[in-house]
Amino acid sequence: MSTLVICSGGLDSVTLAHHVAAHGRLGALLSFHYGQRHCKELVFAKACAQRLHVPHHVIELSAVTPYLRGSALTDAANVAVPDGHYAAETMKDTVVPNRNAIMLTIAFGVAAGQGWDAVALAVHGGDHFIYPDCRPDFIDAFRIMQDKALDGLWSVGLEAPYLSLDKAGIVKQGAELGVPFAETWSCYKGNDIHCGRCGTCVERAEAFHLAGVCDPTAYADKRFWKKAVAERQATQGAA
Amino acid sequence: MSTLVICSGGLDSVTLAHHVAAHGRLGALLSFHYGQRHCKELVFAKACAQRLHVPHHVIELSAVTPYLRGSALTDAANVAVPDGHYAAETMKDTVVPNRNAIMLTIAFGVAAGQGWDAVALAVHGGDHFIYPDCRPDFIDAFRIMQDKALDGLWSVGLEAPYLSLDKAGIVKQGAELGVPFAETWSCYKGNDIHCGRCGTCVERAEAFHLAGVCDPTAYADKRFWKKAVAERQATQGAA
Repeated sequence: MSTLVICSGGLDSVTLAHHVAAHGRLGALLSFHYGQRHCKELVFAKACAQRLHVPHHVIELSAVTPYLRGSALTDAANVAVPDGHYAAETMKDTVVPNRNAIMLTIAFGVAAGQGWDAVALAVHGGDHFIYPDCRPDFIDAFRIMQDKALDGLWSVGLEAPYLSLDKAGIVKQGAELGVPFAETWSCYKGNDIHCGRCGTCVERAEAFHLAGVCDPTAYADKRFWKKAVAERQATQGAA
Repeated sequence: MSTLVICSGGLDSVTLAHHVAAHGRLGALLSFHYGQRHCKELVFAKACAQRLHVPHHVIELSAVTPYLRGSALTDAANVAVPDGHYAAETMKDTVVPNRNAIMLTIAFGVAAGQGWDAVALAVHGGDHFIYPDCRPDFIDAFRIMQDKALDGLWSVGLEAPYLSLDKAGIVKQGAELGVPFAETWSCYKGNDIHCGRCGTCVERAEAFHLAGVCDPTAYADKRFWKKAVAERQATQGAA
């Protein structure tokens, strides 16, 4: 039983790779270059593969990027990366249309072609609010669709062990597994160090805090996340 | 209401483009270059777009090809194109792992990003036997998965009007629509003219015969298809 782990080089997917490896099932890591603003994550995905002694495959999808307009992650010229907590309405700007479905179908093709038994994806409970393609009913529907698509020719499973876990839960699991968190990248902005202000930086810092795990991340703005979390709580309290 | 038609330049998808255009809903054509042995089809897809006065987008997926091993369509060095009728067991070699699911998820991403209301695919009844990702239950499951993936952000439909039609039925519709069939390409081998011997050439010639429509295609081997069809019928009769 060997699993192909989709790994962006972020905290969640690197922890997932360590989790699958700890169960003796890690076959390879698969990353996507889809025209992100920066390739910093991919460096950490590669380092993870080397650390776990498995191949690292990078699928080049930049040619698709010009067609996926309107997203801050790929459309650098037109959309600014919003600051603040993920839950904010502005975070919709970080959605790449159909990203998880595209990555997963390619990963299933690669797994079928290369003989892996399963594909693993680090979608987690904290993503549900904004991203429809991170929700349990998407994952369920994807499994059914994929079984039909490969019926009788290949059998590939979909593992999403963090689906009902939040990011703090992933940090706790990573700490138990000895994941070198400093060797993971979350920030959308891709500067030398994490900005501390974008949605994923705020989410990252909060997760370490909630997990009670020391955060080894260097943030350009160390204090912003607390303010963003407080603002979100105030907004939710008022609603 | 505008539809993005996935068009390979083959008989089925070119007829589909004309069909959608005849209903005044054609927005653009989308083709994929996924490392096919030849690009002949794409020339005919482009010609179709020009004829119907819509944009033609080509998504470059060749980088994915090395990972989709074991298919005669993409792995030119290792697998020969089999001769004979599609229904033969050897035709499994022409399956590209997860091809329709990959093309469709990208098409849905492009449709969402560009504002099209629907994606149309020319899968037809004759494909069901060999290809699981051409069957009605795959299409149904794909629609459900895609609704979940884009939920609340975008609404894109999936049109597959040929799902319960065979290729002869498509030829009949194409003839009624005035599709210039000589401006479509089916052959897997990509020589100057259709080989007349590969699965898709046999299927094409048989479809014109069954539809009672004059076949304008120049085949290198004009007679092979009748022999292949007779052999299939004998095999089916013996079974």
